[in-house]
Amino acid sequence: MTKSAAVLVIGDEILSGRTQDTNTNTIARFLGSLGIDLKEARVVGDVEAEIVAALNALRGIYDFVFTTGGIGPTHDDITADAVAAAFGVGIGYHPEAYALLEARYPPGEFNDMRKRMARIPHGATLVANPVSGAPGFHIGNVYVLAGVPMVMRAMLEQIAPQLPRGATVTSVTVEASIPEGAIAPGLAQLQKDHKDVAIGSYPFYREGALKPFGAQLVVRGRDSAAVERAVLALEDILRDLGAAPQRIKPANSVDVK
Amino acid sequence: MTKSAAVLVIGDEILSGRTQDTNTNTIARFLGSLGIDLKEARVVGDVEAEIVAALNALRGIYDFVFTTGGIGPTHDDITADAVAAAFGVGIGYHPEAYALLEARYPPGEFNDMRKRMARIPHGATLVANPVSGAPGFHIGNVYVLAGVPMVMRAMLEQIAPQLPRGATVTSVTVEASIPEGAIAPGLAQLQKDHKDVAIGSYPFYREGALKPFGAQLVVRGRDSAAVERAVLALEDILRDLGAAPQRIKPANSVDVK
Repeated sequence: MTKSAAVLVIGDEILSGRTQDTNTNTIARFLGSLGIDLKEARVVGDVEAEIVAALNALRGIYDFVFTTGGIGPTHDDITADAVAAAFGVGIGYHPEAYALLEARYPPGEFNDMRKRMARIPHGATLVANPVSGAPGFHIGNVYVLAGVPMVMRAMLEQIAPQLPRGATVTSVTVEASIPEGAIAPGLAQLQKDHKDVAIGSYPFYREGALKPFGAQLVVRGRDSAAVERAVLALEDILRDLGAAPQRIKPANSVDVK
Repeated sequence: MTKSAAVLVIGDEILSGRTQDTNTNTIARFLGSLGIDLKEARVVGDVEAEIVAALNALRGIYDFVFTTGGIGPTHDDITADAVAAAFGVGIGYHPEAYALLEARYPPGEFNDMRKRMARIPHGATLVANPVSGAPGFHIGNVYVLAGVPMVMRAMLEQIAPQLPRGATVTSVTVEASIPEGAIAPGLAQLQKDHKDVAIGSYPFYREGALKPFGAQLVVRGRDSAAVERAVLALEDILRDLGAAPQRIKPANSVDVK
């Protein structure tokens, strides 16, 4: 049975538009590599009631929830308290987190705000932070990770061995200089004939390019033979329409839909 | 009374990690310029029940909801049907949408799949698409926009005149080469003393830079005089700590948290 997951991004800076979230995409790719399906993502601000409500909704639906952000030393870092509230458990200094943070600072500099980073909900286990020390944590089916992308990525590497592996999705992208609407009828029939794969269509416009528009057609599925069968059929359909299909390795594009 | 909004991003390609969503950030900045607060964002896949559930949750809570994605001609474009289901209304060809799409194609090329783009929930009004023709639409407090960023941006421009204006948020960013934990106590006191602003702290690491780490401290509020008072106090605190505060105009950074 394929495991499901959700991401909960926590931070006013995402909702104000100040910061472009990239953690959701990083986690999506990470989970894909493990064969876990990311099913939903949410962004909420630094408001305890909203974090609690979103976390309780998501952890009830999905096998895993990954949160990012709000675990630093400043007053607006309230994720640990919100997670404790969501689980209905207490919170306090975690001896191991306290000791490792204390050891990082010169005498007198481990102030009360820095000590906040050692406050961990009761019953949680730590997620090591090899970049900057302050740990994340894991409680129930929830992983609480840092918001800084570099730290978040390092924490994902830490928890990878704890997560289950499933069959990974094979994804093949075929690009053609054809309007989406011209391939759409064939694509709909193809999807009907190949119910064991999911077929997506993503139009693109490339200003100034020799062939400025077209579509990337993506066939995805856990049965790689089924994916290949559907892709071969797709390539036939495209050739019949006079388009020259090309299998490509898509970049993590921000310009294509 | 400040108006609130949510974004609902619709598309398997975001959750698979294939595509980095940038529409949420674009909408966040757009709403900020109008004085509307973006309070939540969600991403769901191309699954009608999930789109319906998310849309009904969000439109019940916030003044406006903006959806992106799933309004093209292909079988996986199911947003219009999902929105009709969410509102409990019928759906069919919208005469104006049908006519404008029909006029775009050579005789015989306006196929059934392309006609799908003229299917609009009953009671909705169109949102013009000056880039590629196929319109978005507006029903109740929900704006249904394209997923392709270039088209989505053009649609935002179309609907801007219809949206209410509120007082915009003034945001001042002060950068200092100081560890977040060293400024945290002063920052917490500052937030207590200036409850009319919101103070955020975002640490950064810049590999290879002369001063590789520090924090960006952001003061936000609708009363610009109150923001300025808090920023002046913040700069005093930073100078007392031996840090040289610098007001900066932050780029839309993807490296900073």
